[in-house]
Amino acid sequence: MTLPHLSRLIVTIDAGVARVVIDNPPVNVLDAALAGELVTLLDVLRDDPTVRVIVFESANPDFFIAHVDMTLIDTPTAFDEVARRLPAAPNPFQALALRLRAQPQLTIVKLEGQARGGGAEFVAAADLSFAALESAGLGQIEALMGILPGGAGTQLLSERTTRGRALEIVLGADLFDAATAERYGWINRALPAADLDGFVDRLARNIAALPEGVIAAAKTALPPLDLDVGLQREHDAWAGLFTRPAAEALIRGGLKDGAQTPDGERTLEALLRRLWERLRPT
Amino acid sequence: MTLPHLSRLIVTIDAGVARVVIDNPPVNVLDAALAGELVTLLDVLRDDPTVRVIVFESANPDFFIAHVDMTLIDTPTAFDEVARRLPAAPNPFQALALRLRAQPQLTIVKLEGQARGGGAEFVAAADLSFAALESAGLGQIEALMGILPGGAGTQLLSERTTRGRALEIVLGADLFDAATAERYGWINRALPAADLDGFVDRLARNIAALPEGVIAAAKTALPPLDLDVGLQREHDAWAGLFTRPAAEALIRGGLKDGAQTPDGERTLEALLRRLWERLRPT
Amino acid sequence: MTLPHLSRLIVTIDAGVARVVIDNPPVNVLDAALAGELVTLLDVLRDDPTVRVIVFESANPDFFIAHVDMTLIDTPTAFDEVARRLPAAPNPFQALALRLRAQPQLTIVKLEGQARGGGAEFVAAADLSFAALESAGLGQIEALMGILPGGAGTQLLSERTTRGRALEIVLGADLFDAATAERYGWINRALPAADLDGFVDRLARNIAALPEGVIAAAKTALPPLDLDVGLQREHDAWAGLFTRPAAEALIRGGLKDGAQTPDGERTLEALLRRLWERLRPT
Repeated sequence: MTLPHLSRLIVTIDAGVARVVIDNPPVNVLDAALAGELVTLLDVLRDDPTVRVIVFESANPDFFIAHVDMTLIDTPTAFDEVARRLPAAPNPFQALALRLRAQPQLTIVKLEGQARGGGAEFVAAADLSFAALESAGLGQIEALMGILPGGAGTQLLSERTTRGRALEIVLGADLFDAATAERYGWINRALPAADLDGFVDRLARNIAALPEGVIAAAKTALPPLDLDVGLQREHDAWAGLFTRPAAEALIRGGLKDGAQTPDGERTLEALLRRLWERLRPT
Repeated sequence: MTLPHLSRLIVTIDAGVARVVIDNPPVNVLDAALAGELVTLLDVLRDDPTVRVIVFESANPDFFIAHVDMTLIDTPTAFDEVARRLPAAPNPFQALALRLRAQPQLTIVKLEGQARGGGAEFVAAADLSFAALESAGLGQIEALMGILPGGAGTQLLSERTTRGRALEIVLGADLFDAATAERYGWINRALPAADLDGFVDRLARNIAALPEGVIAAAKTALPPLDLDVGLQREHDAWAGLFTRPAAEALIRGGLKDGAQTPDGERTLEALLRRLWERLRPT
Repeated sequence: MTLPHLSRLIVTIDAGVARVVIDNPPVNVLDAALAGELVTLLDVLRDDPTVRVIVFESANPDFFIAHVDMTLIDTPTAFDEVARRLPAAPNPFQALALRLRAQPQLTIVKLEGQARGGGAEFVAAADLSFAALESAGLGQIEALMGILPGGAGTQLLSERTTRGRALEIVLGADLFDAATAERYGWINRALPAADLDGFVDRLARNIAALPEGVIAAAKTALPPLDLDVGLQREHDAWAGLFTRPAAEALIRGGLKDGAQTPDGERTLEALLRRLWERLRPT
């Protein structure tokens, strides 16, 4: 297999395991360029039977994928081109989640830093996820922008946790630590940061070494839930909010206040809450 | 909004959060009068868009809602009037659970004390629930009265935990502490009692402050499971037991032995087990 | 009730609880003889309304049920006779799981030692399961033999845990300790070994003492998931692997290397991984 030229993904393949390091400074926002590279890579790997497992990690220890690029508010067609390369879905972000779920390889996320919004949805769309106890953070904080998770997040949470906990995640809009995310079933496990690499590497190698056909058979026997009805419901709920003035004001204002910079991102929930305090009608 | 006169509920509204303190001495049994006031309140709040979140708590630190009033065995029509104000369901207790689930506000239970039977079903019918590690207790102890949870409890448990754990809860009929209830997914979280108020208050205020439409959209994207088939199955299973002599003997005998008094309620499981030891056919 | 003569099961009945001690040396493999005795016992108990609860445990502290007899690779029809006494299912191992699930008594597994493959599926097919923190182990390690759990294991896992955790269990093919199995929802609870007997005995006695009809009503209100579609999917995925050369080489080679002996069984995962290192095509 010849890997295509990619500038935001560093890919190495060894013993049937593809390691994909996401590197889209400064905070790994999921913009159209990164999404495009991810789809290119998934397409190439899909046709390579020697690759059995794909491990996603980040070049930035603080951020896995920060979230979807908030500047999309000004370039609403930016994902159109990527969407044409993805399965049909009510919106491109859901399509990306479906694409990742359909990958024949087993996909694993190794989460050292933070993943919010579309970044958290990427984690949940992967087959397996392991996170560092001391540093990882997961948040569906879209409510703080006046919207909802619209990239399959509500449905992926419904698969994994109770409705009450999913409502707490989506409406509480807090950043969850790895231990709580594990207790809620959001990820497979939280591990001490010192053990994370070793655990994931061993698991990935063991799975990549299985006799041919076992991974495909397991994915057949344990199929993803039928997400179709839920994705449409999620999209409609999300789209009804996205067109309201509050969402636009929060997304534009958030960018002005420091979102998508490393400092602003680390405590993005507080940044957005302060902004809404100023903006909200009284 | 003008709140109606209520004698068993103390209601205060601030910053979009309605705090509802249940006060039906001596142990907050769910009798027809309390159920009626709850329905009245839910009806009034339903039409008030300025209230976004409803937090339920108890005036009695030992008991949230003890359980359904056991004296109903002698007044089987007591809930008929309330039932006429509730959605159609196989029985009035299921109807109350459906009514609570249908509330447009996000509903949260703050559980400091014990909740058994219909009290535990009320906790599970709320959207979110948080309990004090040191003092809270949850029990579906209907089996000790010769019946089953008949107010949606079996179905609400099925949503949240595995079949094996639901069977353990329903047939083991023990009082569960908050830590175990959290591990089983029965509640959102167990928290140190000292942190419970602060945690729930912050969460309620944050959610109440979200831009308009977000709560409704989240409830649309994360809908309750379709409970219809399950509720009928639960009701039939419950009704088949309720008409047996054992149930009547246990409910009447339990009342005689101290149920619905504070002392009897604290260890109601032991009281009912001792009673059955005396009553059961040998 | 007169118990039939059984040589691999030691059965005692007291206070409505049948205790079944599995004793099939050296490691309690699930062979046709043991399966036959299990079906005989379940059939007899099914018709005895005085028995309310069945507790399964092992005479061997190290192994509950090691797994399905690997020598079946040479005697593929060995389960045919047992299968004729079981419900219709795509294969006999799934049929045994369905049979256990259909038992009118509440079934409980007390797990002190290890249970892999078909042994782990037996644990998951029982209604309730409790395991010793210090010594119990659960593993769906079929992938290491080039196959998948084919005795309902994938579907029983899907009922209990998230898809990601089920994939980790099935493809990671590691032996899970009791604490992790509890966190994943695979078993009801992990308990200190010193408390396990007391906890299970008390629970079994309490449930056996419930008024008549309560257990049946609970099983009606909390029905098993409809497994039909899933079982066929699982069987097809399993059967497609079982006919491949890798599976045969791993099963035969595993037996030669010490599988089904106590020493080989204790670390069966490592034994099979070493074997595959030698066998796998490079």
